[in-house]
Amino acid sequence: VLDLLGLVACNELLAVDRMAADARLAPDLNRRALLYEMAAARVANYRRLVARLVELGAEPEEVASCLDLLRPYHESTAPKDWFEALTRACIGDAVTDDVLREIAGLVEEPDRQVVLDALHERRYAELAAAEIRAAVATDPVLASRLSMWARRLAGEALAQAARVGTGRPALNWLITERTGDPAGVRSLFTRLTAAHVDRMSAVGLNT
Amino acid sequence: VLDLLGLVACNELLAVDRMAADARLAPDLNRRALLYEMAAARVANYRRLVARLVELGAEPEEVASCLDLLRPYHESTAPKDWFEALTRACIGDAVTDDVLREIAGLVEEPDRQVVLDALHERRYAELAAAEIRAAVATDPVLASRLSMWARRLAGEALAQAARVGTGRPALNWLITERTGDPAGVRSLFTRLTAAHVDRMSAVGLNT
Repeated sequence: VLDLLGLVACNELLAVDRMAADARLAPDLNRRALLYEMAAARVANYRRLVARLVELGAEPEEVASCLDLLRPYHESTAPKDWFEALTRACIGDAVTDDVLREIAGLVEEPDRQVVLDALHERRYAELAAAEIRAAVATDPVLASRLSMWARRLAGEALAQAARVGTGRPALNWLITERTGDPAGVRSLFTRLTAAHVDRMSAVGLNT
Repeated sequence: VLDLLGLVACNELLAVDRMAADARLAPDLNRRALLYEMAAARVANYRRLVARLVELGAEPEEVASCLDLLRPYHESTAPKDWFEALTRACIGDAVTDDVLREIAGLVEEPDRQVVLDALHERRYAELAAAEIRAAVATDPVLASRLSMWARRLAGEALAQAARVGTGRPALNWLITERTGDPAGVRSLFTRLTAAHVDRMSAVGLNT
């Protein structure tokens, strides 16, 4: 549970970093301010998760160690422009969120709800999906470029999920033991991929 | 008044950019989250100022044009580390705030209060001042390095104040007409410098 809460906390904080960087790519000041506002909600998530971790006796350094696990995805997916940023928000990050949501389903209350509440705040992904859908509908060149980018993002996010499994064996154990399925990890990846494909087609990108 | 509100709005938005960048330099996750929280308060300031501008009939492009006036200071003062970021927050940015506060004193209500409310949220400067004071008290090498950096920041901020006067003649006019002092601009610069010197010695830096 500490591993999971720590990962979700760091995921929120890195999302804030990403959104603050994306804000600089926003095409107008209104969207720039909106991104900062949405980032503020994620900072509040981070604070709540850390408060719970402290309640459970975790040390701040343990929380910080989770950052290292998530940083490679973060650093390998820096967007070059606003549309790449939007695609990462609604395609790449969604894979990570799915992983955390699946694991949360296996832990007990109240921590399950703490994690699900944090993962619930995804206005950026919704806004991003709407904006991509509208843009690619009339621009096949953009659609093709973003489809390629989105496939790369999903690959990086799935690689991160695998790294988290290796770096945090307790989470792997949760999946196989709590589900009672020795192939639990493999079926998790199948579900992740299916959800990803659905999201791609929902916004008009090609898998 | 439109010029002033636009400048204050852009100053708040650029402060958010700076604080988000500074957050990445923070030495621990707690301070990083704190910076993001303080940035969120400044986004709220920005939104309130833009709402007032729209009420007064301003166009979004006019607001954006104020960014260009403030950007040179912003870009020429990128901090290399956490202490440089703190120094900019409590020394350099304070000069800009003083300029805006002085001009706000010359406009009428309710806009005067709108501006003063925005300038009131300066927790970052307070936190930065306390942290610098503590750090330089025991580290003369740091004190000397930050003193030099702070002098450069003040120079850039005063240069920006002069650029704003040239770029927005209406603001210059406000100062000379409303104060009834033809040398109003010069005495403003005298007050700015005096306030800056006080702030430097309050945190233990040498002018």
